[in-house]
Amino acid sequence: MTAIDHTHDPAARTSVPGADGHPDFPIQNLPLGVFSEGDGARRAGVAIGDQILDLAAARAAGLLTGEAARAVAAAESGDLTGMLALGAGPRRALRHQLFALLRADGPESDRVPPLLHPAAACTLHLPARIGDYTDFFVGIHHATNTGRQFRPDQPLLPNYKHVPVGYHGRASSIRPSGVPVRRPHGQAKPPHLDAPVFGPSRRLDYELELGVWIGPGNDLGAPVPIAEAAGQVAGFCLLNDWSARDIQGWEYQPLGPFLGKSFATTISPWIVTPEALAPFRTAQAARPSGDPAPLPYLLDAADQAGGALDLELEIRLSTASSREAGASPHRVARSNARHMYWTVAQMIAHHTSGGCNLRPGDLLGTGTLSGPDPDSYGSLLETTEGGKVPIRLATGEERRFLEDGDEVILTARGIREGFASIGFGACRAVVLPAP
Amino acid sequence: MTAIDHTHDPAARTSVPGADGHPDFPIQNLPLGVFSEGDGARRAGVAIGDQILDLAAARAAGLLTGEAARAVAAAESGDLTGMLALGAGPRRALRHQLFALLRADGPESDRVPPLLHPAAACTLHLPARIGDYTDFFVGIHHATNTGRQFRPDQPLLPNYKHVPVGYHGRASSIRPSGVPVRRPHGQAKPPHLDAPVFGPSRRLDYELELGVWIGPGNDLGAPVPIAEAAGQVAGFCLLNDWSARDIQGWEYQPLGPFLGKSFATTISPWIVTPEALAPFRTAQAARPSGDPAPLPYLLDAADQAGGALDLELEIRLSTASSREAGASPHRVARSNARHMYWTVAQMIAHHTSGGCNLRPGDLLGTGTLSGPDPDSYGSLLETTEGGKVPIRLATGEERRFLEDGDEVILTARGIREGFASIGFGACRAVVLPAP
Repeated sequence: MTAIDHTHDPAARTSVPGADGHPDFPIQNLPLGVFSEGDGARRAGVAIGDQILDLAAARAAGLLTGEAARAVAAAESGDLTGMLALGAGPRRALRHQLFALLRADGPESDRVPPLLHPAAACTLHLPARIGDYTDFFVGIHHATNTGRQFRPDQPLLPNYKHVPVGYHGRASSIRPSGVPVRRPHGQAKPPHLDAPVFGPSRRLDYELELGVWIGPGNDLGAPVPIAEAAGQVAGFCLLNDWSARDIQGWEYQPLGPFLGKSFATTISPWIVTPEALAPFRTAQAARPSGDPAPLPYLLDAADQAGGALDLELEIRLSTASSREAGASPHRVARSNARHMYWTVAQMIAHHTSGGCNLRPGDLLGTGTLSGPDPDSYGSLLETTEGGKVPIRLATGEERRFLEDGDEVILTARGIREGFASIGFGACRAVVLPAP
Repeated sequence: MTAIDHTHDPAARTSVPGADGHPDFPIQNLPLGVFSEGDGARRAGVAIGDQILDLAAARAAGLLTGEAARAVAAAESGDLTGMLALGAGPRRALRHQLFALLRADGPESDRVPPLLHPAAACTLHLPARIGDYTDFFVGIHHATNTGRQFRPDQPLLPNYKHVPVGYHGRASSIRPSGVPVRRPHGQAKPPHLDAPVFGPSRRLDYELELGVWIGPGNDLGAPVPIAEAAGQVAGFCLLNDWSARDIQGWEYQPLGPFLGKSFATTISPWIVTPEALAPFRTAQAARPSGDPAPLPYLLDAADQAGGALDLELEIRLSTASSREAGASPHRVARSNARHMYWTVAQMIAHHTSGGCNLRPGDLLGTGTLSGPDPDSYGSLLETTEGGKVPIRLATGEERRFLEDGDEVILTARGIREGFASIGFGACRAVVLPAP
């Protein structure tokens, strides 16, 4: 596991105005991303407060050296795939040199301001070339809640507590936060009809997930042992696995979700590193003691002791009329990343156990991270019991599923006594009408 | 539909020795691929008989001009993705100029020999960067045969005749013909055990499919209408969707196949173009007249009349001992690409109907193309009834599923009175023992 060091010191201050105490990006976070300004080229950057530091410019100014400079050079084309491929060493070197550069009493503090760009004036892009995208199903409360709608007597299938169930998702339609999502057309068969119909989805939903960026990857035929799986993780993001429940319900047998999901996936654009998240590591909590032990290829003592993440997650929703009225987004649910039945290392060890190769820039989704209570459910399918019980927003509006103009906002935050809080930035998108 | 023209003349002859009457690559085929020789760089090429013509060298020699030269220039990096993106116009121009260059009485025939490389001395690579890989399930006999093993009373699920069912596959583990396939480890639960076990797959299988290369692609949110879907097809290949039935059977509920498939997919490396296949177009045959009509977004008169392909398909198997004895590979099955319930255009129109974007170089699989009779089944799961009835090879050996050392060879051939026969080249790979 990643060590706690001076870069996690909650007393550390930065020379960048306004960044100390920033809810997402204080100096203890330093997430990596790709930005552009105006019509400019895409550049690798790091978030600090409300600013983005241009990494290539910092390297060109001689402020990053050795392994850190090598990491930045690998991202000079304006995407981070090559940097992720280098693994933990260069990434940690970069974190340490950035921390030294940005701290309030740093010897080079006066050289920082020319490297900064106001985030509000920048566009954030997908940080890497996503080769393959795999979505897991490790949120056990979500698996139970959705399973119950189909099988009241046996919500969890027999394989759930043995297999980190996952499926291949669509990489081409993943977009960064802020890009609107078009309501899809699709084929569905409402229960009262004998034949399917084609039209705009009437049961559009969100799903609250974490995304995991893959670093070095593995060769085809060379599984990643569980004890080495954490070394494959380059970082984390938020992920909204938009779902058209009516399309999904009609299409998914026998080969799984397809067009019910492939129209859009939204991710937060900053890669929050394993180093930044070290203070929020915790023991695996979601596996009750009477459950079957994982098979040996999924079992590692260090992973059991610290392979889970304690991150507070929120879903908020604003409607077209609530935004017009100037109302704050309505908080629909609060959950936590601890509600994962399988750790990220278990997901990776399982994924590669048959020899499947992961490549730098591949993305994994955790699956929906619902908590045990209705106010912690990660999808409307669960919160409204499949559309039967509407939720009432602060504006008085009701929702069974998403309506055009709705904006869904996901956030994640690490909070732990003795450490600075950090966040992921927003993962948000507005629903546009069907074409 | 693609027109028949002088490049389909069965009487056409080439100046390339041995290529006339070649079973796969006479002058009427001209498939596109990527090759290298020794330690040399990857180059775009076209197959003619047992030779590969270097396209960049032909362009550099001034033998390709205009749109054809533009197509080759787009592939100068040694992969064809950029060429596929240009669509039908440049691809047809290239076919016509290559035909003129390679014909026996061509005015530039004497300039051809320096451009040729013996295929036997070359390595063939994946021809394009595969962004996303989607596998469909359009072989209705396969869907029925496999469904019967789970649901004797209702082999086909209710959605089958309305939805071109598909799922996302793994792009990273697709390899060209000739790359051995490592038997995967995985989790399975044999019926006589109470808990799953982890070990080498004992039910390793092949699946006979066609692959479809995507050309220009579409923007996210902009579906491809059925009448325009054929324009998205850049070409075809053979595809072996290797499957570990024991892993698949335990993992696939509720989200579909994952590790039972992701360890390997083998494709034939030559892209056989829609132009080359024009003589083998036929009316859709697999939809019985009493079946429900496709919804309008899947219905196009031209597609119904000529959107299917009449291609003879074969599966052959050699074992380690049969190769030692010098025996020919045993033909396990003969089938035909007509056994598709949905056309390729229907697959594309459906895939994009919710707005999902296809990108140049994306690959679609058709699903297993079994015929109606046991000697036409496209997987051992069907041929051996789930391993219950072994097949006997010409050597006297028996097979329920694949054993280490077995080589599976898929072939496809277009045969039609009045036209030259063409083939796809082999899609073959040997099974290596589990690591």
